[in-house]
Amino acid sequence: MNEQLIIFDTTLRDGEQSPGASMTRDEKLRIARQLERMKVNVIEAGFAAASNGDFEAVRAVAEAIKDSTVCSLARANENDIRRSGEAIRPAASGRIHTFIATSPIHMEKKLRMTPDQVVEQAVKAIGWAREYTNDVEFSAEDAGRSEIDFLCRIFDAVIKAGATTINVPDTVGYNVPEQFADTIRTLIERVPNSDKVVWSVHCHNDLGLAVANSLAAVRAGARQVECTINGLGERAGNAALEEIVMAVRTRKDVFHCDTRIDTTQIVPASKLVSGITGFPVQPNKAIVGANAFAHESGIHQDGVLKHRETYEIMRAEDVGWGANKLVMGKHSGRNAFRSRLQELGVVVDSEEQLNHAFARFKELADKKHEIFDEDLQALMSDESSEPKEHFRLVSSSFHSETGETPCARVTLSVGGKEAKAEACGSGPVDAAFKAIEVVADSGTQLLLYSVNAITTGTDAQGEVTVRLSKDDRVVNGQGSDTDIIVASAKAYLNALNKLHAKLERVNPQI
Amino acid sequence: MNEQLIIFDTTLRDGEQSPGASMTRDEKLRIARQLERMKVNVIEAGFAAASNGDFEAVRAVAEAIKDSTVCSLARANENDIRRSGEAIRPAASGRIHTFIATSPIHMEKKLRMTPDQVVEQAVKAIGWAREYTNDVEFSAEDAGRSEIDFLCRIFDAVIKAGATTINVPDTVGYNVPEQFADTIRTLIERVPNSDKVVWSVHCHNDLGLAVANSLAAVRAGARQVECTINGLGERAGNAALEEIVMAVRTRKDVFHCDTRIDTTQIVPASKLVSGITGFPVQPNKAIVGANAFAHESGIHQDGVLKHRETYEIMRAEDVGWGANKLVMGKHSGRNAFRSRLQELGVVVDSEEQLNHAFARFKELADKKHEIFDEDLQALMSDESSEPKEHFRLVSSSFHSETGETPCARVTLSVGGKEAKAEACGSGPVDAAFKAIEVVADSGTQLLLYSVNAITTGTDAQGEVTVRLSKDDRVVNGQGSDTDIIVASAKAYLNALNKLHAKLERVNPQI
Repeated sequence: MNEQLIIFDTTLRDGEQSPGASMTRDEKLRIARQLERMKVNVIEAGFAAASNGDFEAVRAVAEAIKDSTVCSLARANENDIRRSGEAIRPAASGRIHTFIATSPIHMEKKLRMTPDQVVEQAVKAIGWAREYTNDVEFSAEDAGRSEIDFLCRIFDAVIKAGATTINVPDTVGYNVPEQFADTIRTLIERVPNSDKVVWSVHCHNDLGLAVANSLAAVRAGARQVECTINGLGERAGNAALEEIVMAVRTRKDVFHCDTRIDTTQIVPASKLVSGITGFPVQPNKAIVGANAFAHESGIHQDGVLKHRETYEIMRAEDVGWGANKLVMGKHSGRNAFRSRLQELGVVVDSEEQLNHAFARFKELADKKHEIFDEDLQALMSDESSEPKEHFRLVSSSFHSETGETPCARVTLSVGGKEAKAEACGSGPVDAAFKAIEVVADSGTQLLLYSVNAITTGTDAQGEVTVRLSKDDRVVNGQGSDTDIIVASAKAYLNALNKLHAKLERVNPQI
Repeated sequence: MNEQLIIFDTTLRDGEQSPGASMTRDEKLRIARQLERMKVNVIEAGFAAASNGDFEAVRAVAEAIKDSTVCSLARANENDIRRSGEAIRPAASGRIHTFIATSPIHMEKKLRMTPDQVVEQAVKAIGWAREYTNDVEFSAEDAGRSEIDFLCRIFDAVIKAGATTINVPDTVGYNVPEQFADTIRTLIERVPNSDKVVWSVHCHNDLGLAVANSLAAVRAGARQVECTINGLGERAGNAALEEIVMAVRTRKDVFHCDTRIDTTQIVPASKLVSGITGFPVQPNKAIVGANAFAHESGIHQDGVLKHRETYEIMRAEDVGWGANKLVMGKHSGRNAFRSRLQELGVVVDSEEQLNHAFARFKELADKKHEIFDEDLQALMSDESSEPKEHFRLVSSSFHSETGETPCARVTLSVGGKEAKAEACGSGPVDAAFKAIEVVADSGTQLLLYSVNAITTGTDAQGEVTVRLSKDDRVVNGQGSDTDIIVASAKAYLNALNKLHAKLERVNPQI
């Protein structure tokens, strides 16, 4: 039997740190349930000490998830670790993941600590963590640019102190595969008791090498890979879970290990994460891109499709393509609706919330005959927006005609009070945004605007993402509707609500 | 001095084979000019024998480009090679790139030829090609799954016959870096006169390893990499040019070679290709994604941005971010407009076309105060649509109001005659598409729909991509406008026009 490769998903932590990708507690829960269904080994649910909201989100995931280990990240200080320990307490299997920077530049410029102090702090951190769980992971931040002797020294010390997983991150995405593999091989050879721990890697994609570096490390002996759905994450992102899993599975002859991942859950997970975060997946993305398994018609003429293996090394159905089931229509009842939500891992907190969601489902079914899983996910994303909405769209109308300036009227609820406004713009979306701004006067700047149809067909819902910035903050807002202007207005208001909530949090870098 | 790595861009050939990404002659010319400006060494302009349109496009690129070698792909048969030879004849520097499959499965199932016959055909092909140019590249299709002894034998034979570049493609994206590097190293060692030719690789990204495999091959001695802007290409695409170039440049210590690429042209090239093909770039794409150089605000609190190198291995401005110059407004004159188009590499065929484009520019400037390069590119993409439009949007009007069904009226020109129609739908875009279908009755299915704002700000133009399928054909249509519904209607009509043109072409697989 092949050895197991542990899949450590950090979509909810490093993925969430992508500009604008912050998620609510409920959104994190939905993604966590999908990760559990996919049989991810470890779910890094967040950074509990970042804020009260982050603490609550990690705790909620720890309460909900049974089949995966739930992990919280913590800097190597007592407060961070105790917050993480409290947050993962309800977990069936809980892990604390603590880190400290080990590269000369980071120790000097950021930590302002000597190497001796850094080792001492790391050892203390493991001790605090072990008060809460026997499953403790240690990361050397910016290991890719750290001195190998110092890495050996600090890893030796934390293993003695009780760390059970040692993670080697390439924080700035600077490594290349052969070199990174050499580092891992050297560490495993030189660090005492290296066979008593699991060696892990966490690679960033700045040069497009996150997956290759992770896989090279696996060949060198790493048995945990930290990765994210769709390769989400800071800057150019992390190693893509789907690519790691499928490379290892497709090339067992090379990697001699396998994961326990249910690969048919990969595409549903990709769509869920892209829907919730508003980060689209480009068509030419490996495994989960719309074109990954599509062939241009030309080659059919060659008749090669009689022999599928001529051009296929994986089957689309193995990663969950084509499982797009028709679930419901306008005649579907409340019970069917509730039970489908349960199957999708969407938890409805109260009967009132269910009633409200069901009413919106009926509205949607009046406009769109076939309601797919993706439509339900989008509906519930709209439904469960937290923080409690300050701005809400009550109604809207717009008109556009060749030769005339497009105009929009909106009625908003602002902190419970109704407000009406009207504006014209370069197009109906611009007009709608300007009408909202007549009321909101937010002083924000629109950085990105994108729309993707949630399903195929002209009556599909459009899922709109807007990215707004104000001062130093960047937020993404999402909205979906069969009416693209309404979806745009919802997305804009969703972003304004996030800015209004003024969340303060700290983002660690590993 | 470091050795030179030859950058061979196949955006116009393999990139174009992405489902729906086919480009017109004018679009290819605009991309080719940008590639030349970026100082790409070799531009694979197309597959001249695929159709008359492809022949004309290769020939037009060969006529226009002076500073890059222009290449046409050809199967290893006399007709393909002679068509390629004719197409590249006007080039200042022209190359013929011929290929034949060398893996057992492809030789048996697709070619139905014995290995001896394959070698004989390859040698003949080089001979025909040398009648036209001394710059002849040979590719062993599916080399990644071919037997090494046979590869040595056929490469020896084609080098003797006069091939000057030997390309080793991983056609199905099955290889992993170390193994692929071993293959390249072995070939260079074993093939006689291997030092007389340039060794090249062409990797596909099915497992997310195209860039890593290419770079591993460079370390093993390859001195040409075939790649595409944004990693466009069949299925999950090819190696991304921007990642190859920046990895080699950032890690000169590892790769010991460099390219002649002007990296500040990378982001403009990425935007141009994504605009023309309608393939968006995901935000977490390395180098050219919107987030590639963005940091979440949290880390500002750590004060690390005082020491940029803490988290930065490349500078955004080095790859052309932030060069988004304000070029024009409503007071800009016709001469300024014409000269900016020239700087962007857009060629206007006639005074009539310039007048028409300038009128549309003025219209746009009335709606949008600041006109950026990206706006001009989009305007000219709309302008230069070939094949000659069968369907054209004359005028439209839409109305939508909460509680009512959205409806649209359109006036189309169909083969020169006006037709009006009206329809209602689940949203204004659905209504517009249904109104168009009242007239067109195309029987197509909508597979994908997406919108991206071309620039920032609420008054930005939306660039809409629709993907339609009918029978065995898939086409992408693009349209842009400050009015999202108008842009959608244009995109839908653009796709219908492509289907109407019924282009027949063959797509080679390497």
